Amino acid sequence: MAKRLVPLLNRVLVEKIVPPSKTNAGILLPEKSTKLNSGRVTAVGPGIRDKEGKIIPVAVKEGDTVLLPEYGGTEVKLGDKEYHLFRDDDILGTLHD
Amino acid sequence: MAKRLVPLLNRVLVEKIVPPSKTNAGILLPEKSTKLNSGRVTAVGPGIRDKEGKIIPVAVKEGDTVLLPEYGGTEVKLGDKEYHLFRDDDILGTLHD
Amino acid sequence: MAKRLVPLLNRVLVEKIVPPSKTNAGILLPEKSTKLNSGRVTAVGPGIRDKEGKIIPVAVKEGDTVLLPEYGGTEVKLGDKEYHLFRDDDILGTLHD
Amino acid sequence: MAKRLVPLLNRVLVEKIVPPSKTNAGILLPEKSTKLNSGRVTAVGPGIRDKEGKIIPVAVKEGDTVLLPEYGGTEVKLGDKEYHLFRDDDILGTLHD
Amino acid sequence: MAKRLVPLLNRVLVEKIVPPSKTNAGILLPEKSTKLNSGRVTAVGPGIRDKEGKIIPVAVKEGDTVLLPEYGGTEVKLGDKEYHLFRDDDILGTLHD
Amino acid sequence: MAKRLVPLLNRVLVEKIVPPSKTNAGILLPEKSTKLNSGRVTAVGPGIRDKEGKIIPVAVKEGDTVLLPEYGGTEVKLGDKEYHLFRDDDILGTLHD
Amino acid sequence: MAKRLVPLLNRVLVEKIVPPSKTNAGILLPEKSTKLNSGRVTAVGPGIRDKEGKIIPVAVKEGDTVLLPEYGGTEVKLGDKEYHLFRDDDILGTLHD
Repeated sequence: MAKRLVPLLNRVLVEKIVPPSKTNAGILLPEKSTKLNSGRVTAVGPGIRDKEGKIIPVAVKEGDTVLLPEYGGTEVKLGDKEYHLFRDDDILGTLHD
Repeated sequence: MAKRLVPLLNRVLVEKIVPPSKTNAGILLPEKSTKLNSGRVTAVGPGIRDKEGKIIPVAVKEGDTVLLPEYGGTEVKLGDKEYHLFRDDDILGTLHD
Repeated sequence: MAKRLVPLLNRVLVEKIVPPSKTNAGILLPEKSTKLNSGRVTAVGPGIRDKEGKIIPVAVKEGDTVLLPEYGGTEVKLGDKEYHLFRDDDILGTLHD
Repeated sequence: MAKRLVPLLNRVLVEKIVPPSKTNAGILLPEKSTKLNSGRVTAVGPGIRDKEGKIIPVAVKEGDTVLLPEYGGTEVKLGDKEYHLFRDDDILGTLHD
Repeated sequence: MAKRLVPLLNRVLVEKIVPPSKTNAGILLPEKSTKLNSGRVTAVGPGIRDKEGKIIPVAVKEGDTVLLPEYGGTEVKLGDKEYHLFRDDDILGTLHD
Repeated sequence: MAKRLVPLLNRVLVEKIVPPSKTNAGILLPEKSTKLNSGRVTAVGPGIRDKEGKIIPVAVKEGDTVLLPEYGGTEVKLGDKEYHLFRDDDILGTLHD
Repeated sequence: MAKRLVPLLNRVLVEKIVPPSKTNAGILLPEKSTKLNSGRVTAVGPGIRDKEGKIIPVAVKEGDTVLLPEYGGTEVKLGDKEYHLFRDDDILGTLHD
């Protein structure tokens, strides 16, 4: 039942990152301070075509950590895991340490 | 009365896959865990034209297993069987084992 | 009063096919199983122009049996007969035996 | 006060045809059977420009009998007579005997 | 305080023509028969640019008598006089004796 | 705290002209007759790009007196003064004595 | 947990400037007079592509002080700090002393 999804067009499959609700030292964090709507890119589509038929590559790549919009995206369940599909132009940016 | 449908433009005829509600071993599965809105592509149109009149081929092909959006698509009954028609850019991705 | 209509642009004149409500053998069919929203193409327009002024031919031709969308189309009465006008990109596909 | 109107762009000036409510033999016709929303083209504009600035000629010409959409069009009174203005792409087709 | 207005883009400055409410012979006209929403063009803009940057000249010129849409247009007061500004593609046609 | 604003794209910074509510001779003017929604252009952006990437210059220039639409525009306070930002295609025309 | 965000497309990361609520001399300012919705640009995306696939550079750059629209933008929390993401064409202008 667990399948691999290859997104179409400029869609991006993202696994959301659930932030830890306590610090490493075990102190409980207030909910607000930990909320960053981010995810890891699991798969990307081939991109959409521009007006002249050329493929525009997707703006993120597999493995990227991305900042996601608060709303939108399509929930997808593959095997046990929950993912979200976004159009690449809905993804806000990439996150780096 | 059973006819064969050839979709127009970038439309895709899909037969939805009804997930088994119990495992092979006969254990009833809770409804949530089995829900994956997928289907098998039965027929595809020739594609739509871009601004310069060139045909953009449809992004999926006959026999593909596809992930479908939760809403949308047009129900079509051909003979005894129920199908759904989608525009290829509404199909979320292809599913692979 | 009965006139011939030549559709403009990419419009398609369709005569809806009323499905028989009993089989050839005279058995009454349950309403659901016979419902297929189809029609026969009676006349087609010359097509619309693309961005560069070239005519895009209409996707169906006179005599085609077509699958129609559930809603839309303009009812037209010519002489005794009722027809419907559709834009060719609203027609879902062609039906073949 | 009666003036001649030269439509702009792709507008078409149409004089609606009021169908006779009895046959030549004087038999009253039921209202439904005579209703065909048609008109005679009185004047047409020069056409609109495509993306490259070239004029697209209007799809109907003076003297054509046309099938009109049920809604839309702008009522215009010139002298004693009532006319309607339509964009040529709202006109459904031309009618021929 | 009375200023001259030079419209921008494809805007057209129009002075509405108030139809006489009696004939030259002094007979009062019923309100309906005189109503024609027309005006005299007082000034026109330079036109808008098409997709390739070329100016599309405005479809009417100073001095034209034009048929106006029933709604729309922006009321402008210059000195004592009231004018209306329209986009040239909202003007329905030109009127000629 | 008083800063100079350089508008982006085709935006135009306008200082509204408050019409005098009495004539030079001191006679109070009825409110309606003085109302002309005009302003002085204080700064203009570099313009937006057309489909081919070329900059379209802004249709008004610094120092122009302009006729403004009744609604729209963004209020901006710079130092003590109030200004409004408009897209150049929302400005109705230029005013000249 | 504090990450660096690289915006995608034509997005701009902005840190809002909170105006002082008293003057240097310690006099409390009435709320209205200090309100200027400005921010400092912290990071910009690579820009979006035009119809021919060429990248249009973002209209502002890191370090610019910008005037922001009253509504819109996406709140983003990175580490302890709050930022806002805007599309570059929503930013009204740049502010200079």
